[in-house]
Amino acid sequence: MTLILSNDDVEKLLTMGECIAVMEEAYVELADGRGVSRTRSDCFTPTARADALYSLKSMDGVAPKLGVGAVRINSDIVTWPKRGNAMRREKVAAAPNNRYVGLVLLFSVENGEPLAILPDGVMQRMRVGAANGLGIKHLARNNAKSLGILGSGWQAGAQLMAACAVRDIETIRCFSPNPQSREGFATAMSAVLGVDIIPVGLAEEAIEGADIVMCATNSIDNVFFERWIEPGMHLSSIKRPEIEVKAVKRADRVVIHWNDPTPIHVAAKDVVIEEKVAGRGWQLAEEIDFHKLPTLPQLVAGRAEGRKSETDVTCFINNIGLGYQFAAAGSLVYRKAKESGLGHEVPTDWFTEDVHP
Amino acid sequence: MTLILSNDDVEKLLTMGECIAVMEEAYVELADGRGVSRTRSDCFTPTARADALYSLKSMDGVAPKLGVGAVRINSDIVTWPKRGNAMRREKVAAAPNNRYVGLVLLFSVENGEPLAILPDGVMQRMRVGAANGLGIKHLARNNAKSLGILGSGWQAGAQLMAACAVRDIETIRCFSPNPQSREGFATAMSAVLGVDIIPVGLAEEAIEGADIVMCATNSIDNVFFERWIEPGMHLSSIKRPEIEVKAVKRADRVVIHWNDPTPIHVAAKDVVIEEKVAGRGWQLAEEIDFHKLPTLPQLVAGRAEGRKSETDVTCFINNIGLGYQFAAAGSLVYRKAKESGLGHEVPTDWFTEDVHP
Repeated sequence: MTLILSNDDVEKLLTMGECIAVMEEAYVELADGRGVSRTRSDCFTPTARADALYSLKSMDGVAPKLGVGAVRINSDIVTWPKRGNAMRREKVAAAPNNRYVGLVLLFSVENGEPLAILPDGVMQRMRVGAANGLGIKHLARNNAKSLGILGSGWQAGAQLMAACAVRDIETIRCFSPNPQSREGFATAMSAVLGVDIIPVGLAEEAIEGADIVMCATNSIDNVFFERWIEPGMHLSSIKRPEIEVKAVKRADRVVIHWNDPTPIHVAAKDVVIEEKVAGRGWQLAEEIDFHKLPTLPQLVAGRAEGRKSETDVTCFINNIGLGYQFAAAGSLVYRKAKESGLGHEVPTDWFTEDVHP
Repeated sequence: MTLILSNDDVEKLLTMGECIAVMEEAYVELADGRGVSRTRSDCFTPTARADALYSLKSMDGVAPKLGVGAVRINSDIVTWPKRGNAMRREKVAAAPNNRYVGLVLLFSVENGEPLAILPDGVMQRMRVGAANGLGIKHLARNNAKSLGILGSGWQAGAQLMAACAVRDIETIRCFSPNPQSREGFATAMSAVLGVDIIPVGLAEEAIEGADIVMCATNSIDNVFFERWIEPGMHLSSIKRPEIEVKAVKRADRVVIHWNDPTPIHVAAKDVVIEEKVAGRGWQLAEEIDFHKLPTLPQLVAGRAEGRKSETDVTCFINNIGLGYQFAAAGSLVYRKAKESGLGHEVPTDWFTEDVHP
């Protein structure tokens, strides 16, 4: 039987601690070249809405030690709204019942069979959190206690869960432009983490004196600037453009998630990808040679150096996601789902065939 | 509701004539740059069997005019058995109930929703047939009547269906090394096509005097040689290595399916891809610059020249498959499935989500 799992199922099965542990194991395999990950690809075409594009995104990865191959697919209606000068990338919930479309398919490395199909949302959030959590674990000061976070969305929550899983965080300050968002986030996440989160009205207030600064926004513009850096800080970002180039260059130690090229973009004629036109998000790739930076798998596997002193400024940029992360987290979720009996079972024969294709 | 379709459903819904027609329309869109296709990728790692590899292959494409995006995934246990000097690529039916694993997922370009999930086998066979059929339609002599085919497998059947859909074929001779295979194939396909197929014991017997020669094998070695070429012949191949380089160079007009680079291969350390070691299948790519050859979409769209005389030797090489073909054929299958009520319906909410991933 093949399992159809929901985000609720994944939320029950995938704890941040376990997610970080399985990722850590998997990254060693990836650093050794035993695991494989295929560069993400994005196909863009026009869609029904004139102010949006259709985007079909996919990424694959295989974690042989964990026995799982994964394909993650996003079928999105994408817009790039502006709020003042800031540009964001926003998906439209255009599917029936106002829903988004992201899927993970898990396959057995042993016999090829489809093990499970599930929405990508919760797993996506947890694996981004786990990667930045591993960045903190291997780069931030051991005694890091205070944390400032920019952003109060869905990803920001997982970022805090990950930080608290690897360091004894005592104080958290959160800035995001919308007072209601940051206050709601602070209340909700304080309850989840058992740590008081203080919403603040300026980015600087969140950052000043923080041992760890986490950027967790939808912004494709810079949100953290060099002038805010303090000795010993660890900087963490979930996407390329959040930390300005000058700040990245100022850090003593910069580690990226993975040194693949930028995603493969295949765009239909006359399609305008707004963030590219605006030159946003691509500046970092131009000014910093990603191929020369050490990666998180290398760091985790002990093949790249981490922090050398208490005053070093360290920086982890989660520059690109990996299909491989879904194979690793997927192996854990699948095993636990089987043990607990969660999910809908459908006949595996529906997704296999008797002809040699 | 999202449809789960079977190969049997697809077989009922997808006729070769309709498949060729929808492909022809779609190729014009692709040639115009309005449709997009993402280069195939193959991830290779070790698997349980020491003489095999695990291969996770994927390709994507979006046909906006037809309203469908497609991802095709193959999760295979692959071996490279040798028979004498000939090497073949063979998938092992290792999934439960001795089955293979190939899937197509169809999405709406309009709202992103998952429209259908289906095994890839029948659609894969039909779209390969349709491409080579369009090669014949636009390159072979209008009065072509006799056909020789090398191969008697699953793909060979679709090749003949396609040829008969675009030309009035009166005689077919079939060679494959195993007498039982070629005889069984001849009997079965004669009944399907209403044309007498004569099984023969030598490749030369199938080819001599044929207006159209179709190669439809699993071989990763040459099976058709320059010395067999006759004036006016159309040569057709479903993969790169079947026609020897000298024969390709001898042809007056060579068209390939698509001039993408070779598939992206991401292999785990120490993994040996047998056909690469043997240097097989890659010779053609080295000796012929695929980027300079006209493509089938260009030919179909009238942007590349076809045959210029009755004595021209023409050649179509189906050098690489496209995710785009699954979007095109998928749009047709999905529409007809909805009309006819075929397939299992499952809630679309199973494959969508309420979180912005």
